[in-house]
Amino acid sequence: MLKKENVSLSVIRRLPRYHRFLADLMRSGITRISSKELSRRMGLTASQIRQDLNCFGGFGQQGYGYNVEQLHREIGVILGIDKQYPAIVVGAGNIGRAIALNFDFSQMGFEMIGIFDINPSIIGMPIRDLTVADVAGIEAFCQKHHPRIAVLTVSRSAAAEMAEKLIHLGVSGFWNFSHYDFSVKYPGVIVENVHLSDSLMTLCYMVKDLSEKGTSIEVLKD
Amino acid sequence: MLKKENVSLSVIRRLPRYHRFLADLMRSGITRISSKELSRRMGLTASQIRQDLNCFGGFGQQGYGYNVEQLHREIGVILGIDKQYPAIVVGAGNIGRAIALNFDFSQMGFEMIGIFDINPSIIGMPIRDLTVADVAGIEAFCQKHHPRIAVLTVSRSAAAEMAEKLIHLGVSGFWNFSHYDFSVKYPGVIVENVHLSDSLMTLCYMVKDLSEKGTSIEVLKD
Repeated sequence: MLKKENVSLSVIRRLPRYHRFLADLMRSGITRISSKELSRRMGLTASQIRQDLNCFGGFGQQGYGYNVEQLHREIGVILGIDKQYPAIVVGAGNIGRAIALNFDFSQMGFEMIGIFDINPSIIGMPIRDLTVADVAGIEAFCQKHHPRIAVLTVSRSAAAEMAEKLIHLGVSGFWNFSHYDFSVKYPGVIVENVHLSDSLMTLCYMVKDLSEKGTSIEVLKD
Repeated sequence: MLKKENVSLSVIRRLPRYHRFLADLMRSGITRISSKELSRRMGLTASQIRQDLNCFGGFGQQGYGYNVEQLHREIGVILGIDKQYPAIVVGAGNIGRAIALNFDFSQMGFEMIGIFDINPSIIGMPIRDLTVADVAGIEAFCQKHHPRIAVLTVSRSAAAEMAEKLIHLGVSGFWNFSHYDFSVKYPGVIVENVHLSDSLMTLCYMVKDLSEKGTSIEVLKD
């Protein structure tokens, strides 16, 4: 696979979306799709889709469209979800447990090898095939098992110290649900922030904006 | 407050981030900040910050910086988080419960008025000051209480039908955690998608990309 240097982050952020739509197509039994039809379903332009995929060497044959299963598989390889980067969850409160229970990390490039919390009433709780461990032992655990990724769902006040500790223990990527944004402080570390409250506030803005414009809502049927 | 027409979505998406950083400054007792210092903390350029805020008529005085508390409050008003749009959670599984338990919706523009699920072992469960209700009663509930917003955390297979039903019952904004993307189908409805698995796959790509480039990780101290 030929890959351009420095693919932009916005292209990269669309790749999981292609992967998701292609999985939907596979479930519907569709084996081949034109960029035009894919664009209609995804709400992108066909030219955008061709441009995006060309960043990775292009797929499909002129006039024949894309082979859905092949494209799905190759995008998966580009994303690296065939890897198994060792990962831990730090913070097993409501959000941490929901994440650990709802995501099949092994299908997304990660092997979940540990879950930690500070709360004695949560320590010892079984979550899938793991047991919540005392965060006091996280240093020894990391020195032994070398997790590369941490899902950080601790409180804002605990996040700064925990992030620094984990970075020094060799963690180089974070899925960060804490309200502490450390991507600026550690520019060499990968931090994928999930600021759910930012998303909720954006929704609030859009709903307010819609109300103010008094736009009527069109319900399209197809 | 003077507001430009058609503020771009990328500006809007930065507003909650400003709001968050300003709240941090308030917690640290900082009352006034220059766009330069704010830009350093946020990892944006000072010119970007001035441009963004100018979309809403501008704040702050040349040479004096921004009044932190005032800017925080005014951004909150722009976002509409002083409103109380009636909202419901549909799907009270792990993710739905974690969302309902962890977010103070009333601080983000919403009043949570109902939580629904289909699972008899979850129906009746207390969550904050609400009780999980049977989703069979959702139509009657909506006709009586007119929720404007739904947090959708049902399965992909249930999402299409549920979204359509809720839209016809007057719901005009969705915080969508389901894996079904209906924003293309209903262009007049506000759909704020939270595709956590897209975020996780993006993290995977970035970690893989970092490994392949063999970039050493610089830990900056400040």
